[in-house]
Amino acid sequence: MPILPIADPADPRLAPYTSIREKDLTSGHGGRFIVEGKVTLETLLRRSRFKVESLFLCETRLEPLADILAHVPEDVPVYVAPQDVMDDVAGFPMHRGVLACGVKGEAKQDAALILSEVEGRARAARGASFDFAQDEPLPSTILMLSDLSNHDNVGACFRNAAAFGADAVLLDGRCCDPLYRKAIRVSSGASLWLPFAHGGSGAEMVKAAQAAGYTVWAMTPRADAAPLGSLPVPDRLAILLGAEGQGLPAELIAAAVPVRIPMAAGFDSINVATAGAIALGHAFAARA
Amino acid sequence: MPILPIADPADPRLAPYTSIREKDLTSGHGGRFIVEGKVTLETLLRRSRFKVESLFLCETRLEPLADILAHVPEDVPVYVAPQDVMDDVAGFPMHRGVLACGVKGEAKQDAALILSEVEGRARAARGASFDFAQDEPLPSTILMLSDLSNHDNVGACFRNAAAFGADAVLLDGRCCDPLYRKAIRVSSGASLWLPFAHGGSGAEMVKAAQAAGYTVWAMTPRADAAPLGSLPVPDRLAILLGAEGQGLPAELIAAAVPVRIPMAAGFDSINVATAGAIALGHAFAARA
Repeated sequence: MPILPIADPADPRLAPYTSIREKDLTSGHGGRFIVEGKVTLETLLRRSRFKVESLFLCETRLEPLADILAHVPEDVPVYVAPQDVMDDVAGFPMHRGVLACGVKGEAKQDAALILSEVEGRARAARGASFDFAQDEPLPSTILMLSDLSNHDNVGACFRNAAAFGADAVLLDGRCCDPLYRKAIRVSSGASLWLPFAHGGSGAEMVKAAQAAGYTVWAMTPRADAAPLGSLPVPDRLAILLGAEGQGLPAELIAAAVPVRIPMAAGFDSINVATAGAIALGHAFAARA
Repeated sequence: MPILPIADPADPRLAPYTSIREKDLTSGHGGRFIVEGKVTLETLLRRSRFKVESLFLCETRLEPLADILAHVPEDVPVYVAPQDVMDDVAGFPMHRGVLACGVKGEAKQDAALILSEVEGRARAARGASFDFAQDEPLPSTILMLSDLSNHDNVGACFRNAAAFGADAVLLDGRCCDPLYRKAIRVSSGASLWLPFAHGGSGAEMVKAAQAAGYTVWAMTPRADAAPLGSLPVPDRLAILLGAEGQGLPAELIAAAVPVRIPMAAGFDSINVATAGAIALGHAFAARA
């Protein structure tokens, strides 16, 4: 692991780290993503499905992070600078002093592909004892997000999906990027390792899940929806959440099983990620 | 309702609105609090338990807000200014163009007092048909917060408490202020109308709830805690949440019934407000 001291904030090797907040506002970011902080760095190094390109640390963090840095691949450069140089590069105070750059690579955009991988892993986990001929459904829960534009909410959805053992997250093309810096942080790093697909329409996403045998619960406050808890949890459950504020469009609700979380009259509003957590937690407890 | 045009950002009548972000950092704020945005303004005017002192609006918002402004008490001044003057006063761009100032007044710091009010309201709602002599417990759920230092989390806890019909929120003295600008906004205005007490130690808070007949569920990821769903929901339930990160201290858990939310192995971490929502939602559904 090459440790490379940096003295000049204009050093071209730090280009991925310059003016981070402005980069946040542009989509794509050259196919890279940035993680910040110790917890997400450790996730990136130990558990991520993405390639690490480089690390950029404040010099005071090198020693305290020694255990984590042992997981840095040999060919990945670790740039190290004094606090003021780091702040200059990033464009704002980097109190945590821990940044890393990853490569999105061939992001798997295809929902059906992700679901077949989930299936493959589940069957592999059953091993030789599993009788494929019976084609018995293997229990699985996935989370599906349509039109979520807030990075905190997308990050929180990943965190909750991980906490309640969901196998994958599907996001339609109207959702924001789960590999945005803040989304990664709020997800506690879950968006780095939990399989996801991102793209297509909400209707296509619902169809892909149904084709893979999932029953889709469209979460909605509508009074005519079935109360969560009144329905048996299907072996294959996809929990579908819609946009902050307006919720799911009528046509997606109509294509699925409308499910509501019972709430006090006159206050039918909880955060979308919180609604997801309640539905995921319910399914997890029911299977346990 | 006097409409008072303002042209000078230094107008002394706007003192409560100057440099809002700096005021956020100082506790007390002269016994006042600031709300921003249309939704929380409407809550402040129509449902709040606190007195409105003044409004401060961008001139372009006067007409669109006419319906809401009909609820402004006659003696409350409405200051109106161009966008640039408003931005100058607040110290940052006030895109929403809607601010108001309220008075905390004699904030009820006493948990026992709040709980006796909850009891009184519940009995009043039962009316003459209720037989006081039987002293039958009336169902009630409250939320208790210990050492929550993040305003977003405190705000989200209030929003969730309101959504699931909790009767009150108790906060120990180590919690941050639920009337902080951002906490009010994240609460969807619930911290303006949901009764709360704020002060004292966590142990005192637990004792006050128990003295009022509440069973306290201490939410913790500890493996020896009872899984949520394995316990009957008591008629009087207090859900106790602890600090972000470290959770509840052992002595508070020991004074209560430890309850855990079943989660996937190796990922026992969800946001504290989300954990509260799951417990509150469970109790609400069980009573329904």
